[in-house]
Amino acid sequence: MKVFYNGKFEELESVKISPFDRGFLYADGVYEVIRTYNGKFFRLDDHLERLIYSLNEIRINYNDVNLIENILYQLVDRNNYTSEVSVYIQITRGSSFPRRHSFPEQNIKPTVFISVNTLVENRVENESGVKVILEKDIRWQRCDIKSVALLPNVLANQHAKEELSAEAVWVKDGYLLEGSHTNFFGIKDKKMWTAPLSNSILSGVTRKVILELCNLIKIPYSEQSIKEKDIKSFDEFFISGTTTEIKPVIQIDKFKISNGKPGKITKNLQAAFYDLIKK
Amino acid sequence: MKVFYNGKFEELESVKISPFDRGFLYADGVYEVIRTYNGKFFRLDDHLERLIYSLNEIRINYNDVNLIENILYQLVDRNNYTSEVSVYIQITRGSSFPRRHSFPEQNIKPTVFISVNTLVENRVENESGVKVILEKDIRWQRCDIKSVALLPNVLANQHAKEELSAEAVWVKDGYLLEGSHTNFFGIKDKKMWTAPLSNSILSGVTRKVILELCNLIKIPYSEQSIKEKDIKSFDEFFISGTTTEIKPVIQIDKFKISNGKPGKITKNLQAAFYDLIKK
Repeated sequence: MKVFYNGKFEELESVKISPFDRGFLYADGVYEVIRTYNGKFFRLDDHLERLIYSLNEIRINYNDVNLIENILYQLVDRNNYTSEVSVYIQITRGSSFPRRHSFPEQNIKPTVFISVNTLVENRVENESGVKVILEKDIRWQRCDIKSVALLPNVLANQHAKEELSAEAVWVKDGYLLEGSHTNFFGIKDKKMWTAPLSNSILSGVTRKVILELCNLIKIPYSEQSIKEKDIKSFDEFFISGTTTEIKPVIQIDKFKISNGKPGKITKNLQAAFYDLIKK
Repeated sequence: MKVFYNGKFEELESVKISPFDRGFLYADGVYEVIRTYNGKFFRLDDHLERLIYSLNEIRINYNDVNLIENILYQLVDRNNYTSEVSVYIQITRGSSFPRRHSFPEQNIKPTVFISVNTLVENRVENESGVKVILEKDIRWQRCDIKSVALLPNVLANQHAKEELSAEAVWVKDGYLLEGSHTNFFGIKDKKMWTAPLSNSILSGVTRKVILELCNLIKIPYSEQSIKEKDIKSFDEFFISGTTTEIKPVIQIDKFKISNGKPGKITKNLQAAFYDLIKK
């Protein structure tokens, strides 16, 4: 598998991340995952804009984001992929010795790693819906930054998996915010709710698309977090993400949503989403 | 420089961390820093016990902690170091493809990286004291785990450096907890205060030694956090850590502690600490 690493295309096996890379030592880096539809990277500009935001927020100086689009398409070509793909982009502050928390004093180059993976379309769960569990939000308070400091997300997602659930949804101060790697939505009296943008959630690209689709197909919505104690008053729930797309939530912990069937408005949004990505 | 990597002693330059190492992708790993006094690793058992605790808490199966002591001394020998040294030990969940938040299903081996570095004894700051800044605690809620998800600590420590300060002390709900890589102590009416062990602070090895020294030289203490608004009622402050040792704090943000001079009880503790490590 060919990957991009610090300015070069090379085989994955030949990539040598230093143990003194600050991504490895300190989670001092950010990332993006982007996928194609019809061979084109979907909402690329939104992803790259968010990448720049994340880089700026943790003050990594990387000025070549404008070169990434070309790298992504080259990577697909060099791997001879003809199916849809997802790419993973990670940029860390770079490698520096000796280990020291503060930024290196010498001018080091950020580490840039990009890999591409074929995507096998599997929409069984998009049809059937998924279970999610609730998890106390123990993350740091800058979840708007797409950083690689993902250990709490790993632990929560693993917990979900052990509960035969697709996702863990973070609950903070009694409010459902987002999943370990998805955004979270509810529908009540034909109105959609989702947590407002803040330091507590990631500004999801699919979340943004969904809000646009709500405007398009006239679903009223409110950027407002759902209270845990109000779950039972909602008619539908779903999660969204770049590779998740739109997945109906049919159960939260032990509680079955509307008899365990995907909701009607969720299905309408899904249909509008599939229409959009076909274009 | 010879390092230990996945079962072998090799040159640092030949170590090849995979970009799919979960330490790099997810901060899915833990670490320890241990130093020598008189050529012997100080409080090795305490450090290894904490390493086991961290591994267990994030459920990394690594059963060879008992082999680490021998590896550390071998590393010192193979590098021909004769001065005091500090070692850095990092263990991650291992490398797995494709990228997925939950633990890999196949049985992968943890990644083990250990490096050793010579320590140049410099106690100027231990004598003169240091400034610290206060920083709002934005970290996750499992700071008792010594994980590599250190991005908030990096940002806080960098902020301290830019304020010409040695450390940033986290303030949570109005209480001073610990520094970005040190524990924090105050002295008021001849009694020492430090935050109690909980999920909000790391169980520092030097912190433990200091409590033992308090018993030895009869300094009363209370494991109780200091309120930010009570700072001015304290007579002395200091920070502690494996390489920090005991450093008097002479200024917190703009506020000078006792005319900007190291406190007397801090100095007594320092003296007792130097006595202990000489043995």
